[in-house]
Amino acid sequence: MINKRDIEFLYEIGTMRNLERAWKQILVTDVASDPEHTFRVIFLALILARAEGVKDEEKIMKMALVHDVAESRTNDHHYVHSVYVKSDEARASEDTFSGTSLADLNSKYLHEYEQRKTIEAKIVKDADNLDIDFELREMEERGHKLPKKFLKFRKLVRDEKLYTKSAKKIWDLNQKSDPSSWHLKANKWVKMPDAGK
Amino acid sequence: MINKRDIEFLYEIGTMRNLERAWKQILVTDVASDPEHTFRVIFLALILARAEGVKDEEKIMKMALVHDVAESRTNDHHYVHSVYVKSDEARASEDTFSGTSLADLNSKYLHEYEQRKTIEAKIVKDADNLDIDFELREMEERGHKLPKKFLKFRKLVRDEKLYTKSAKKIWDLNQKSDPSSWHLKANKWVKMPDAGK
Amino acid sequence: MINKRDIEFLYEIGTMRNLERAWKQILVTDVASDPEHTFRVIFLALILARAEGVKDEEKIMKMALVHDVAESRTNDHHYVHSVYVKSDEARASEDTFSGTSLADLNSKYLHEYEQRKTIEAKIVKDADNLDIDFELREMEERGHKLPKKFLKFRKLVRDEKLYTKSAKKIWDLNQKSDPSSWHLKANKWVKMPDAGK
Amino acid sequence: MINKRDIEFLYEIGTMRNLERAWKQILVTDVASDPEHTFRVIFLALILARAEGVKDEEKIMKMALVHDVAESRTNDHHYVHSVYVKSDEARASEDTFSGTSLADLNSKYLHEYEQRKTIEAKIVKDADNLDIDFELREMEERGHKLPKKFLKFRKLVRDEKLYTKSAKKIWDLNQKSDPSSWHLKANKWVKMPDAGK
Amino acid sequence: MINKRDIEFLYEIGTMRNLERAWKQILVTDVASDPEHTFRVIFLALILARAEGVKDEEKIMKMALVHDVAESRTNDHHYVHSVYVKSDEARASEDTFSGTSLADLNSKYLHEYEQRKTIEAKIVKDADNLDIDFELREMEERGHKLPKKFLKFRKLVRDEKLYTKSAKKIWDLNQKSDPSSWHLKANKWVKMPDAGK
Amino acid sequence: MINKRDIEFLYEIGTMRNLERAWKQILVTDVASDPEHTFRVIFLALILARAEGVKDEEKIMKMALVHDVAESRTNDHHYVHSVYVKSDEARASEDTFSGTSLADLNSKYLHEYEQRKTIEAKIVKDADNLDIDFELREMEERGHKLPKKFLKFRKLVRDEKLYTKSAKKIWDLNQKSDPSSWHLKANKWVKMPDAGK
Repeated sequence: MINKRDIEFLYEIGTMRNLERAWKQILVTDVASDPEHTFRVIFLALILARAEGVKDEEKIMKMALVHDVAESRTNDHHYVHSVYVKSDEARASEDTFSGTSLADLNSKYLHEYEQRKTIEAKIVKDADNLDIDFELREMEERGHKLPKKFLKFRKLVRDEKLYTKSAKKIWDLNQKSDPSSWHLKANKWVKMPDAGK
Repeated sequence: MINKRDIEFLYEIGTMRNLERAWKQILVTDVASDPEHTFRVIFLALILARAEGVKDEEKIMKMALVHDVAESRTNDHHYVHSVYVKSDEARASEDTFSGTSLADLNSKYLHEYEQRKTIEAKIVKDADNLDIDFELREMEERGHKLPKKFLKFRKLVRDEKLYTKSAKKIWDLNQKSDPSSWHLKANKWVKMPDAGK
Repeated sequence: MINKRDIEFLYEIGTMRNLERAWKQILVTDVASDPEHTFRVIFLALILARAEGVKDEEKIMKMALVHDVAESRTNDHHYVHSVYVKSDEARASEDTFSGTSLADLNSKYLHEYEQRKTIEAKIVKDADNLDIDFELREMEERGHKLPKKFLKFRKLVRDEKLYTKSAKKIWDLNQKSDPSSWHLKANKWVKMPDAGK
Repeated sequence: MINKRDIEFLYEIGTMRNLERAWKQILVTDVASDPEHTFRVIFLALILARAEGVKDEEKIMKMALVHDVAESRTNDHHYVHSVYVKSDEARASEDTFSGTSLADLNSKYLHEYEQRKTIEAKIVKDADNLDIDFELREMEERGHKLPKKFLKFRKLVRDEKLYTKSAKKIWDLNQKSDPSSWHLKANKWVKMPDAGK
Repeated sequence: MINKRDIEFLYEIGTMRNLERAWKQILVTDVASDPEHTFRVIFLALILARAEGVKDEEKIMKMALVHDVAESRTNDHHYVHSVYVKSDEARASEDTFSGTSLADLNSKYLHEYEQRKTIEAKIVKDADNLDIDFELREMEERGHKLPKKFLKFRKLVRDEKLYTKSAKKIWDLNQKSDPSSWHLKANKWVKMPDAGK
Repeated sequence: MINKRDIEFLYEIGTMRNLERAWKQILVTDVASDPEHTFRVIFLALILARAEGVKDEEKIMKMALVHDVAESRTNDHHYVHSVYVKSDEARASEDTFSGTSLADLNSKYLHEYEQRKTIEAKIVKDADNLDIDFELREMEERGHKLPKKFLKFRKLVRDEKLYTKSAKKIWDLNQKSDPSSWHLKANKWVKMPDAGK
């Protein structure tokens, strides 16, 4: 059964890509949209789950998928905004999912995520935090100087906010990795002797 | 006397142009930034003040200049966001202006504006509302269909939210005007017989 | 266990948002990125699965998540490109996932999806096709005239390419729906009598 | 012989793509950059030359290639700007080409173009004017309403500014053509029965 | 009294945000629009006026507000363009303001500004020059190398073009300041112990 | 004689500016469009031709003009894509030019270019390769760190892929040049003593 609220929900979800993430105010450079952020958070959460031996990947993916959906009705807020703004995220996501075929994504998965009690909730929050570190290093690759200044805060996140050992491990590996290595060693100059003539 | 907080303030004010206005989520098309919105609000407020016989143009301009500054620390919120978000705008603008040479722009002008009691405050709010109607008609000129659907809300603003007669008059004139007439009658094809050869 | 290829994989996945979808050449207007498209495809696939009574939502989500990952190494191709280009998508996704913790997302889920034999594969392909129709109607809302000209092709997709009845049902509902209804009835003008003053 | 001014020239020419064309102020929508405009002007000029029986295609291409290069040092000016601005284009292009291997592109070809006396100069100017009409129809396809309002000016260009019969013929054909027909009849839906499954 | 020219004026003023500033050609990176530049120039001019003991803040604000309005009809020109282009700015702003309720903004304030004789005119020109230095340092923060190369010209502006001591003081303070300090010390990591969990 | 296929061809050529070049996925920063790339390639090829004593500049320009036209129907592919994708460029350009007045641009000039046998074909390919190096240095000027990492590949291009001595000479000169020197020594600060007051 498909109902009219499903269609409305799909259009609302569709507008989330136009909701520029708030730290754009400070970074100016091109930043990931909410769905672009969520896309990598899902992969990150799956990697963390496997490293931590957590088996319920369906739950992991559902939590990661919806972890920012409330922002459709509250907007995104950066680290200064958080000091001054209170959002009723529970009511926002309630209203977004209400009457759709997917209401349990809110009542079950998003609620559990917001409690941060289960290992799955902790893993998804770790993934949410880690994606910031990946994006900051991508900006550094383009020359941005702010990621360096943010490092003290990101270390605080690593030491005091990340829940799992695997997340700390990824954080450490990430700082020493080269964001461009994946393509620097797998391109036509390396693999195709006749390229470029 | 210039102090270090003045410099910080100028950098904070400078980031406001990177704070995309929230209705972008819904309209998708290019929308004015906060400072671009404020720029026309000042002109609108001056026109309204003169039409209403209000003399204190210094107050009008100062109120218009700062009317959205709190959004640097609260983010902008569109008409759905407003249902779910509470911002402490008073504390936000207090912290932004604190320790600068311009603290009275907050304590005197922005506070008076927020009260909506004086004629100057009402005029600036009218200008703030009217600028939306100008921008919507500009979007319509580019083909957007949403401005038509917003019309019932904009009529409600005209009838129940605008404070001054002059603002209602501008609203009415605006609906019948052509956003492109200023250049359609003042260009080289009209004024320079040899153009384009 | 986290290994170095996981980090490389996360950076590769991260670049997918910068891979503009190819129909931009023809539509010019702002179009969804690959991850933005995928985000709604996952929700669409979940809705279809439930309407069709398909229970393996983990499989649905994994297939939807990776259905376009090969494009990181092949680029996206629009409906004219498809006539002239052959991509080795199997090798591309093999190389992307090789050596990572998530290699089964390719060898198991993406391979099954490419076969289009199981009901889950058919549902995800239906979701992939339907997201186009949602995005086209969003463009129409902004005034674009091409969606109307595409309608004959989209009807062909509806009649001959969609696998499930629920997908056809969503297609039909979508054509009659208003992409803006979700916010036109849930905003401050409707819910907050004092708004805008 | 390559000299240092050639390198400087290539960097200057390279910045022309960042010089947004001035009518963006009025049209807001995405508009072609100078080099993007020039690219189609060259093709248009070649088509016109052949239709008019003009044989010196080298001259045609060189004139078309450099017809806007002076704008690197004068900026582009739209149809209102032209009323208020005088640019020393001769000195600008002189300084751009001075000391390079390509100085004759200015002293010979650009000067001849500016005189509008030879058939080649007239053809390139016709191409320059016609490209506007193509771009306006492309904007109309995206829903823009301004192209319709510009039509009276474009008809004036057709009747009084275009030099050649072939240019008038293209203008007439263009008004009746469909900007999307090239891909609507040459895509996978038409040519590949198995597409989209 | 509101008249039709007021509406036209408001639409013309509204297009100024689409007039990209000319140095984009050279800097490529995102640059402030005219109204965004003007927004900070007003604040800068107010700070300078107070530091210099100048009392007529109404005049300061009006001059700053209109100091670039002529560019609506002349376009913006960067430091190379200035060598080759003559704009009739007086006629341009005359035509823009003619017949509006705000004609004195041109005949009184803009004319006085262009003379550079009164202290208010000098302060607003200083603010106009200083905003460039703020924007250049913001670009440096994002990694741009050109601001360093511009430094010799900016020092020349500081030593020979700035009129007031306070402007030179701001210039000096600005060179030693951190564009990001305002948010690095006022965010959730500093103020909210539970943030990010 | 103008025919309907000429108009279709001009619209197809017009869409090439919306076909973002594929390396955007990796570089993220603003990159040249196909026509913007082609624009400088034509100038580069003319400079190379003169340095090499090659006289047929008409052939040089025609080859350079069309060297990437097939990408309208195949999309652009970056250095990773090339490993996984096969494009039928011959058929693509055949279909693009078929039935137009300019069919020989394909059958004669593009075919000769693809053979890489004549000196003109080699020069245009050298220009195509060199333009990348110019664009990379422009990105470096904006702070990007990837151009440095690409240097080993670009040196390989210089040593093993470039055909002509003049191209190697330009490559060497380019590495030592300043992309900004053209404007740093020809602006108002240098040429106009009264500027900026």
